[in-house]
Amino acid sequence: DKTRVGWWKNGYPEYFGKVINAVDFIAMDLFIDDQLIDLATLTTEDFYWELNMKNGVLTRSYTVTTPSNKVRLSFERFLSIVKNEAAYIRLTIEMLEGNGTVKVISKLDGNVQNEDSNYDEHFWNDIDHGVKEEIAYLTTKTIPNNFEIEQFTVTAGMRHYVDGKLYTPSYQEGTLAIEGSFTFDLNENETLLIDKEVLIFTSRDIPEAQQATHLFKEFNELNVHYPQAKEEQTAAWSKRWELADVVIEGDDEAQQGIRFNLFQLFSTYYGEDERLNIGPKGFTGEKYGGATYWDTEAYAVPLYLALAKPEVTKNLLKYRHNQLPQAIHNAQQQGLKGALYPMVTFTGVECHNEWEITFEEIHRNGAIAYAIYNYTNYTGDIDYLKNEGLEVLAEIARFWADRVHFSKRNNQYMIHGVTGPNEYENNINNNWYTNTIACWVLRYTRENYLKFKEESTAKISDDELAHWQEIAENMYFPVDEELGIFVQHDTFLDKDLKPVAELSASELPLNQHWSWDKILRSCFIKQADVLQGIYFFNDSFTKEEKQRNFDFYEPMTVHESSLSPSIHAILAAELGMEAKAVEMYQRTARLDLDNYNNDTEDGL
Amino acid sequence: DKTRVGWWKNGYPEYFGKVINAVDFIAMDLFIDDQLIDLATLTTEDFYWELNMKNGVLTRSYTVTTPSNKVRLSFERFLSIVKNEAAYIRLTIEMLEGNGTVKVISKLDGNVQNEDSNYDEHFWNDIDHGVKEEIAYLTTKTIPNNFEIEQFTVTAGMRHYVDGKLYTPSYQEGTLAIEGSFTFDLNENETLLIDKEVLIFTSRDIPEAQQATHLFKEFNELNVHYPQAKEEQTAAWSKRWELADVVIEGDDEAQQGIRFNLFQLFSTYYGEDERLNIGPKGFTGEKYGGATYWDTEAYAVPLYLALAKPEVTKNLLKYRHNQLPQAIHNAQQQGLKGALYPMVTFTGVECHNEWEITFEEIHRNGAIAYAIYNYTNYTGDIDYLKNEGLEVLAEIARFWADRVHFSKRNNQYMIHGVTGPNEYENNINNNWYTNTIACWVLRYTRENYLKFKEESTAKISDDELAHWQEIAENMYFPVDEELGIFVQHDTFLDKDLKPVAELSASELPLNQHWSWDKILRSCFIKQADVLQGIYFFNDSFTKEEKQRNFDFYEPMTVHESSLSPSIHAILAAELGMEAKAVEMYQRTARLDLDNYNNDTEDGL
Repeated sequence: DKTRVGWWKNGYPEYFGKVINAVDFIAMDLFIDDQLIDLATLTTEDFYWELNMKNGVLTRSYTVTTPSNKVRLSFERFLSIVKNEAAYIRLTIEMLEGNGTVKVISKLDGNVQNEDSNYDEHFWNDIDHGVKEEIAYLTTKTIPNNFEIEQFTVTAGMRHYVDGKLYTPSYQEGTLAIEGSFTFDLNENETLLIDKEVLIFTSRDIPEAQQATHLFKEFNELNVHYPQAKEEQTAAWSKRWELADVVIEGDDEAQQGIRFNLFQLFSTYYGEDERLNIGPKGFTGEKYGGATYWDTEAYAVPLYLALAKPEVTKNLLKYRHNQLPQAIHNAQQQGLKGALYPMVTFTGVECHNEWEITFEEIHRNGAIAYAIYNYTNYTGDIDYLKNEGLEVLAEIARFWADRVHFSKRNNQYMIHGVTGPNEYENNINNNWYTNTIACWVLRYTRENYLKFKEESTAKISDDELAHWQEIAENMYFPVDEELGIFVQHDTFLDKDLKPVAELSASELPLNQHWSWDKILRSCFIKQADVLQGIYFFNDSFTKEEKQRNFDFYEPMTVHESSLSPSIHAILAAELGMEAKAVEMYQRTARLDLDNYNNDTEDGL
Repeated sequence: DKTRVGWWKNGYPEYFGKVINAVDFIAMDLFIDDQLIDLATLTTEDFYWELNMKNGVLTRSYTVTTPSNKVRLSFERFLSIVKNEAAYIRLTIEMLEGNGTVKVISKLDGNVQNEDSNYDEHFWNDIDHGVKEEIAYLTTKTIPNNFEIEQFTVTAGMRHYVDGKLYTPSYQEGTLAIEGSFTFDLNENETLLIDKEVLIFTSRDIPEAQQATHLFKEFNELNVHYPQAKEEQTAAWSKRWELADVVIEGDDEAQQGIRFNLFQLFSTYYGEDERLNIGPKGFTGEKYGGATYWDTEAYAVPLYLALAKPEVTKNLLKYRHNQLPQAIHNAQQQGLKGALYPMVTFTGVECHNEWEITFEEIHRNGAIAYAIYNYTNYTGDIDYLKNEGLEVLAEIARFWADRVHFSKRNNQYMIHGVTGPNEYENNINNNWYTNTIACWVLRYTRENYLKFKEESTAKISDDELAHWQEIAENMYFPVDEELGIFVQHDTFLDKDLKPVAELSASELPLNQHWSWDKILRSCFIKQADVLQGIYFFNDSFTKEEKQRNFDFYEPMTVHESSLSPSIHAILAAELGMEAKAVEMYQRTARLDLDNYNNDTEDGL
């Protein structure tokens, strides 16, 4: 977005970033006897919709009755995980009763917008399009921007098979769009199969000038067509499931939930490319814009470590290591030393536009470090820790050492002006979680640097190490002796404290019913905050401490982040609170399936 | 602006508002022998620029030398305060040496933008334009918007006199623009006077359909031309100065400063229309967008009370009384009772887009109430207080009573999540100033309601009155016994406290050199905060209290708001700190003349 609304201040990001929508390559319009089949206006029967999580094939079928015939339409489609650049669509048309003319218009369409498009702005310019023999292609390039963000070019191509035979429809070309038109007369009980094969290349892999040539070469070599492609897809997914399947007996909903989450996550990212990362809702909806968040390190890494090969996680760590210069830039934008990993990014440069998040929700920097610890600990890959790992850790530690301040009145170090994992409070002082993870980073980096000093590519001076130790030893942590809890932040206990149970159902989710003012001032917690710290540093706390903090905070937690119930489920299980653990598991596993937070439409 | 960038939350305003730029009616392009006179590229001599504060006439003159002649050009212009809809411009062209052809193009131009225009958006649509005899006119209407903000229509007309005689130039009409072209041959020592008379009517006063007719009627009746208009203007200003002039002997700069400020303020607002208010920088620059802020009540009202007739202030109070329904709407947007006067507004509805200001800088609500007290106290207009005054006070008091919360731990009322007058901190708890003015409103409203209950148009229940009293009696105020000061807010003393004197000059003003992150976490104060409260409620504090707070806070204050040094000057004078009082006076009086905060270009 190229607008700057209102008041820009030093340290605010230059732009707010989102992934833009791809050229639409799945579009296939259908006409029966010249009547457009539009599900929004037509009545259909026997509507069936299936996502097969074993192979990632989505099926949608329904029966349409017109005055002169009755037709069953089935669409099957999948994005190949065998050949990443390929997509397959099969349309099956069965003339159940009567006769008729069926027309299909299959498209590549670059005229796309997203929900945030301002001033009806489009994303793509048409670079080239055309038809060569049976293949239609469209090359598009992102429109120029004012932020020195690299433009990129995408070439999409399509070809079609009818009843298993290569078929060239009548192609029509327009700016940013190309359409192939098929017309067939079908008699009662006849069935027609139209397969659409799509290949897409981007300038991330293939330079713009070579994309068209490359596309035709790849189509020539693409000898795997619909039925076989689907078989190979099933085999590839079954390899993933062998490593990853979680079986829950006796509760189909719980079973479906966990598989659904794994399927969505593996569909979004499976570690093939260290230049890529995981958007919190993948590309299933527009919220979070497909960008990289701390969700990757804090919530996805543990899962990939457990359920995929270590290389998957290692590529996630490399992504951050590659972006270390940009993280140093982000810290410099705030006038601070070291590296500040962004809250939201594509390139490594911060591109989220809320100050209370951008330069306050800095606990994320700790999660980047924690993922290095987690990976090393799980895989034993000490080599990574010694070099790339310590390079990243050193810069994060430098950031923390500069971001704390010394309070003369308290004779301790403090961290003011942060937003903790609980984003329902902003600009708080001495968030227990943030102070905890900051100290942990200082200690962990120092210890490992001292251990691997001679071999490490990182360089840290003795003065720095001494200063880090001094900060870690003299950090202030808000605690309440009487309640025996860690306090979320300095003034949390001054609030009007009451349990979520006292709210009426009509007020939930709070973020859809309360003003932001009321939310910020309330005691209600969006997601685990103190408990997130207890989860990360589990060994450092006694069972009693865990129980007291859980019992204090969980009743005030509305779990309006998908990142909340999972942590609570794990801690509840550890504390033997079985009912709570199951409730939290259900909520985490079926969050989008059951639309707990009334936001499934934003993405999964 | 019609974009919504990023994350909109419940309670955020629907739009960010600014006054748009008027049709440009001053433009007069000049050509000598077909060469455009462009000050950005030509070299000129004897450049002279004068603002005559006695009559509001701006004069600009300079000499241009071309290969074949030497010409002195003088522009004089003023906006009439005798006839509000009129503007006068006189262009004097003296051929000092040689001969030449002088061409003048005098325009009405609706193709204007401001510095915030997004996507090159324009503001005006052309409704009508034309020429009738000697008068050219242009009727424009604001483009439609998505926020149900009323569109408005403006008709501007111009006519010209050459050497005192009515003259019809050759007019050219285009969309949103109309130009009158004059060409004259001048010989050495000849002088030409071109007077431009402009009238402007808006749909605030004259409905769109009648504007053109009205314009011609008014031009017909406008029998006062340049020299006489200037005389009448001078006489009208001299009446204002009779009431208002402040004389400072022995210091020309100090004298110029105060007159400059009075002139700017009186030029912006002199109380003729209760539908209008005062933008903090008037219309001299684009910052603050010409909108209404609390600056009016807190800083302008005391001045108008002292230096103009009481009606001027009364109209400012009526403006807020008229907007009471919108203020109630603003509170409802936050889920709160009563009225929340906006931080920034044109219509009474909040239109500033930073949450930390919009629903946190709520102390402004106190200033609206304080202005009622101030006006009543100064003028003795008890009638106003009894009716309109108490209606406004009651709703403001209701807001405060709902906005506080009761902290069980402290057994006191608190106000969390505010921004005080010091906007270099946001989202703080228990800002001493805010808590102070909130309690004062509750008390003052209750006392006056009890006094005038029978006669008042306001209605307040006994329960409400009792509750207000209870809050006022049990409010928490942060104080530090050891230092003997009122504490700006709960955790202010935990900061790294140090004086501005320890900063290097290159860091000032902070808002241009530091990131917002560093500013928020620092101890440096933008403008009087605790001291603002001491200034307002001067009688409630001992001299020792005033001195201790002044000595504690002033050294940490950077005065990067034009609202800061004035308050400090007054308190320093009261405390007998003469040097500091003079320093602060200089800074407040000559802020824009001497560009103390490096922001004069934003407006005066």
